[in-house]
Amino acid sequence: MPVSSPERDNAERTYVLAHLDDLHADLDAWLRIPSISADPTYAPEVAASATWLAEALRRTGFPTVEIWPTPGAPAVFAEWPSDDAAAPVALVYGHHDVQPVDPLDLWEHPPFEPTRVDGPDGPELHARGAIDDKGNVAFHLLGMRAHLAATGRDAPAVTVKLLIEGEEESGSPHFAALLKEKADRLACDVVVVSDTGMAAPDVPSAVTAMRGLADAEITLRGPAVDLHSGSFGGAVPNPLHAMAKLLAGLHDEQGRVTLPGFYDKVRPLSDRERELMGRVPFDEQAWLAGPAASRVATGEEGFTTLERTGARPTAEVNGMWGGYTGPGHKTIIPAEAHAKLTFRLVADQRPEDVGAQVRAWVEANLPAGIEADVHTPPGGVAPCASDLDSPAMDALLRAIAQAFDTDADRVLFTREGGSGPEADLVEVLGAPLLFLGAGLPTDRIHSPNERVLLSMLTRGAEAAAHLWRELASVRF
Amino acid sequence: MPVSSPERDNAERTYVLAHLDDLHADLDAWLRIPSISADPTYAPEVAASATWLAEALRRTGFPTVEIWPTPGAPAVFAEWPSDDAAAPVALVYGHHDVQPVDPLDLWEHPPFEPTRVDGPDGPELHARGAIDDKGNVAFHLLGMRAHLAATGRDAPAVTVKLLIEGEEESGSPHFAALLKEKADRLACDVVVVSDTGMAAPDVPSAVTAMRGLADAEITLRGPAVDLHSGSFGGAVPNPLHAMAKLLAGLHDEQGRVTLPGFYDKVRPLSDRERELMGRVPFDEQAWLAGPAASRVATGEEGFTTLERTGARPTAEVNGMWGGYTGPGHKTIIPAEAHAKLTFRLVADQRPEDVGAQVRAWVEANLPAGIEADVHTPPGGVAPCASDLDSPAMDALLRAIAQAFDTDADRVLFTREGGSGPEADLVEVLGAPLLFLGAGLPTDRIHSPNERVLLSMLTRGAEAAAHLWRELASVRF
Repeated sequence: MPVSSPERDNAERTYVLAHLDDLHADLDAWLRIPSISADPTYAPEVAASATWLAEALRRTGFPTVEIWPTPGAPAVFAEWPSDDAAAPVALVYGHHDVQPVDPLDLWEHPPFEPTRVDGPDGPELHARGAIDDKGNVAFHLLGMRAHLAATGRDAPAVTVKLLIEGEEESGSPHFAALLKEKADRLACDVVVVSDTGMAAPDVPSAVTAMRGLADAEITLRGPAVDLHSGSFGGAVPNPLHAMAKLLAGLHDEQGRVTLPGFYDKVRPLSDRERELMGRVPFDEQAWLAGPAASRVATGEEGFTTLERTGARPTAEVNGMWGGYTGPGHKTIIPAEAHAKLTFRLVADQRPEDVGAQVRAWVEANLPAGIEADVHTPPGGVAPCASDLDSPAMDALLRAIAQAFDTDADRVLFTREGGSGPEADLVEVLGAPLLFLGAGLPTDRIHSPNERVLLSMLTRGAEAAAHLWRELASVRF
Repeated sequence: MPVSSPERDNAERTYVLAHLDDLHADLDAWLRIPSISADPTYAPEVAASATWLAEALRRTGFPTVEIWPTPGAPAVFAEWPSDDAAAPVALVYGHHDVQPVDPLDLWEHPPFEPTRVDGPDGPELHARGAIDDKGNVAFHLLGMRAHLAATGRDAPAVTVKLLIEGEEESGSPHFAALLKEKADRLACDVVVVSDTGMAAPDVPSAVTAMRGLADAEITLRGPAVDLHSGSFGGAVPNPLHAMAKLLAGLHDEQGRVTLPGFYDKVRPLSDRERELMGRVPFDEQAWLAGPAASRVATGEEGFTTLERTGARPTAEVNGMWGGYTGPGHKTIIPAEAHAKLTFRLVADQRPEDVGAQVRAWVEANLPAGIEADVHTPPGGVAPCASDLDSPAMDALLRAIAQAFDTDADRVLFTREGGSGPEADLVEVLGAPLLFLGAGLPTDRIHSPNERVLLSMLTRGAEAAAHLWRELASVRF
């Protein structure tokens, strides 16, 4: 479905296609700034990224643009009031920081030199942040200009605010506080999250939920010091053995997480939800053959892969270490073993419940002679979801449908398995969520060779332009 | 049993007690040289340690002293021929390199500043290498002088050779080749290994066996790259989960190692061997309360702790790592997981068999979607043992008995759980092994605050002096 020969024309699309060079030039310049928030040595680059975005928003025409400092990385705020005082207020959420790039040697092109590559679905742009999340934010610049040009307005049909934070890839540690501090400025009727994507290049779809997140670090202690394994081996508890046994029991034979009470608050999937998820085209073999590089899909029995990654809670060990890890061997029983775990949560699980569940689980499974420390940081991320039957959702579906030359009832619903600070937006601002993003499951976010499909960026810009028009008639 | 008031006097003891200052001055000087062989930046210090020892042997009177270079660290060879051409030839084996010292902050005194400390069993000397193995080698300097003085000889009653290597703490990678190259120079009737110890301060004992060693490194691979755990979590195999399950199954419910065929060649302990081991006084609670810091002893069912650590084969995970190990969390399913394992072997297991056993075990237990690399370096260490009923063993027991004011049939037999290149000595030189060492299980070798009990050093010097006299009458 080449973008250059649309089936139906519309004024927004005409403007977008005529000004694609602007979008590409903007995105190229922004992607050259390595705004890695997880690494403190890149703090100047994260600040430069905020400055670049603020300038771009001013160029686009936003009358109010501010850089909001936080104890960590700065956020960018912009506002363009509607000339209709009664019009709804929409707040776009995104982030301008990016993931680290290691392992660098797996990148086919330098991660901060945006490179165009011909792919099976058309031209791609390769760079760290190409879609997560600079691409998703950048299409709003062109989308806003297209909205104004197509509707012949000097100001948008709805008041559009943007809040683009700089710490999403570091767990948004200062985001909730910023929301609370600036709640008046951020007041809105609806939040448009632009940090997700669609099911496939030719499959218009809307994300309806994101999973929550809780994390835990477990330290197991055995001997007072690393022991000589010749003198003590086979006779005293080895913390690495204990950690292996503990983590081996994190899932039962049915692939269910074994923390006591973990599933107590999980809202069962309704038949309608499963039917809607089942409509999403999903080539499991192709998905497995991608970065997963797996011959098999695994997971909780009784659920599909899309349900497992989007609609069911999960537990993953993200890191594990202990003892000697250098070259050759060192014959020790180490004093300690460590593991980092994260849990993805779904409605109505609460991240603050997970710490006690992990503690109870460790205590129940600790072998004699081993002591455990469980560290579960406060906070975490609550799961969040859109209301599928709201007028705002109808407006989003119409906007996406127009950008994809289809009908609103052909736009599918998907779920995002990842987690972000979106639940904070709902809680602090009291506004419902919509999701509009141009990513694809095959975009390799957080991995080497992250990319965006250029045709998806174009669709995103056009859908954003339609959305501001469609939302104007919604009464919140 | 204070050394200063012996129950029975003898000429060897008189000389040793009169010249203890020499032993202490020598050992202090040697211990100040940080001869850490595992760290290449200490290569000059390892060389300096060899030079120091060569000088000390010349001072002692050895007419032949040579430094033998290897592709790694140098060894020191010395020879003092007996004036009786028909006398047996004994070769003392030890090493002049030491273990690394980290974690440095747990040392009560700097590891290379020898410090005297009053302990519950008398004065101690604290330093890295205090017993392993500089203390065990140094007592031979005084022992040889005491032998000559007590017997009024100008040359020892047996030809005494020493081979003190510089890479024992790095796995003796060039030792077997050196033995083969210098086999003519090293020809001997008996090898006296001085790299072990006794059961307790007041318990004269002789080591009769050392365990062998084989090592393996396992790499499990899942996704092609680290994956976003929100997008893929709960649906594709996680190598860390697979590693935990694999290692959790390394031992069965009875504490037995699950490698197929692992026990096939293990020689069962005879009733006499178990009876001899049972005579060794062993305060399990005190042992556990030491560096093991454990409330429980664990291990293979049906065996005592001394049998588990000395006479039975074991498997230990020495290191394990994979995924994100930095501060905070990173929500990934890592591409790889790693583990380092070592196996202690007993007669008649062969280290070269273990690689295939590990490979078969991994293959049989690998979950779908995970690939494994098993790296088992060639070599390893064979188990080795003394002949309990030989005339040479009788001579050793008499020598130890005299140093401890007891009778030869009161000297107990112990087994050393550790491993060294002693099997190479047996194989290349074709000579039987005796073990004479002054260490104690509580000496914290390989750990911070390594020490030697000064009274044990004195006993070691005296026993060595008696040994050369006693061995002279043995016909090999």
